Amino acid sequence: MNYKLTIEYDGTRYEGWQRQSKTEQTVQGKIENVLSRMMDEEIRIHGAGRTDGGVHGKAQVANVHLSKFIAPEDLMEYMNTYLPEDIGITDVELVPERFHARLWATGKCYSYRIGTDQQKDVFSRKYRYPLKKTLDVEAMRRAARDLVGTHDFRSFCGNPRFKKSTIRTITDIRIEENPHEVKIVFYGNGFLQYMVRILTGTLLEVGLHQRDADSMIKLLDAKERRMAGATAPAQGLCLEAVYYNNEQNRFTERNGQA
Amino acid sequence: MNYKLTIEYDGTRYEGWQRQSKTEQTVQGKIENVLSRMMDEEIRIHGAGRTDGGVHGKAQVANVHLSKFIAPEDLMEYMNTYLPEDIGITDVELVPERFHARLWATGKCYSYRIGTDQQKDVFSRKYRYPLKKTLDVEAMRRAARDLVGTHDFRSFCGNPRFKKSTIRTITDIRIEENPHEVKIVFYGNGFLQYMVRILTGTLLEVGLHQRDADSMIKLLDAKERRMAGATAPAQGLCLEAVYYNNEQNRFTERNGQA
Repeated sequence: MNYKLTIEYDGTRYEGWQRQSKTEQTVQGKIENVLSRMMDEEIRIHGAGRTDGGVHGKAQVANVHLSKFIAPEDLMEYMNTYLPEDIGITDVELVPERFHARLWATGKCYSYRIGTDQQKDVFSRKYRYPLKKTLDVEAMRRAARDLVGTHDFRSFCGNPRFKKSTIRTITDIRIEENPHEVKIVFYGNGFLQYMVRILTGTLLEVGLHQRDADSMIKLLDAKERRMAGATAPAQGLCLEAVYYNNEQNRFTERNGQA
Repeated sequence: MNYKLTIEYDGTRYEGWQRQSKTEQTVQGKIENVLSRMMDEEIRIHGAGRTDGGVHGKAQVANVHLSKFIAPEDLMEYMNTYLPEDIGITDVELVPERFHARLWATGKCYSYRIGTDQQKDVFSRKYRYPLKKTLDVEAMRRAARDLVGTHDFRSFCGNPRFKKSTIRTITDIRIEENPHEVKIVFYGNGFLQYMVRILTGTLLEVGLHQRDADSMIKLLDAKERRMAGATAPAQGLCLEAVYYNNEQNRFTERNGQA
């Protein structure tokens, strides 16, 4: 039995999604521990995206193979009872045996929230980067337009020794201006390590007039990490959704870090 | 110099607003410690309302007398720098020497958020009571209508030995229905100890059809705490605003717990 889990988590107190050693606090590790106890055997789950430490998830997706049938609603209730209060399962469904949360994903959506006013940010402090500066959102939108499309995003890849293809497709970047914050929403077929945070850091420099809005094409062409902006802090980032539009046709170029 | 401070706080890790012993974690204590260090003398502040442990504040008000002039914006910046990240000062203004945050308050607004769906509540878990049941909001609104007005709220007072007047005026109760939650917003000239949480617990029983929507007048007449509903948990409650409409005419009946 193969189950697709939709997972919501507050990443604040975790060292990221991916299970590392036994002692580290990871979202994957917490979920695997609960499932292993339930099944009385070692269980491994496969997440769609490896979010970094401090990054949140509203609808991360993972799949898990279990050796016996459990009704999806019972599995969800069991997991929500035994998982800590900052990890929740929002949906469980039975999927074909071949379904793989990462390999079958056709797209993802990430959001990044930036606090722009001077106010101390008591209630959103864990979910927003407190920049506390006014941003030229129009300049950011101009720059974002040049990032949309299929490009080699090596300049925006956090892993300098990444050997696989760094070509990805960003289908849309939407920038919302709210009373106390600016929210950048990225849609794409997959993202390299730190890519969303480096894109954000670069767009912030454009919004602060520290970088030319028309310099994005040159920056993509450079294919050098050091030419792009700083990596924006983890806490503002959230994995909003994972899409499975054409579940049969997995993207063959998407074997790398997502 | 008398300063009016507007304060936002996440009450999760505090034992309430009011300073008690030196060792307890209170919002008032944290603010007084920062001001005392700044002024190099013992400073006392006067809060408009004593919120309980775990209750939040979006615009609590306090006043403080300082022996020398400090520009309001400098005072705000200093306090926000040295206060913990879950307490923020959102406004500072100079006010007449006679101004007293509690005695001059003419009204307050509290909100109470209730999670009504089955979803585990990862991101609002500290700000919402996870009831996880559907509520008959129309019945709750009918009951709330009979609570609005000037009444003796002794049945809704958490302190059985309270000697002063338990007459208060509720000017409005609004009940909002949102996709995942019901939010009850209370407006009044002042509230007794636990009064908002007991009103909420009682309205929840009405919403669950455990109590008749038309029984509120009888309940007010009873003047007995044990006739009302349970005290709803602290985490759903938030002090939204304190009003100073007629700053000269303080309500003489408002000497009790606010």
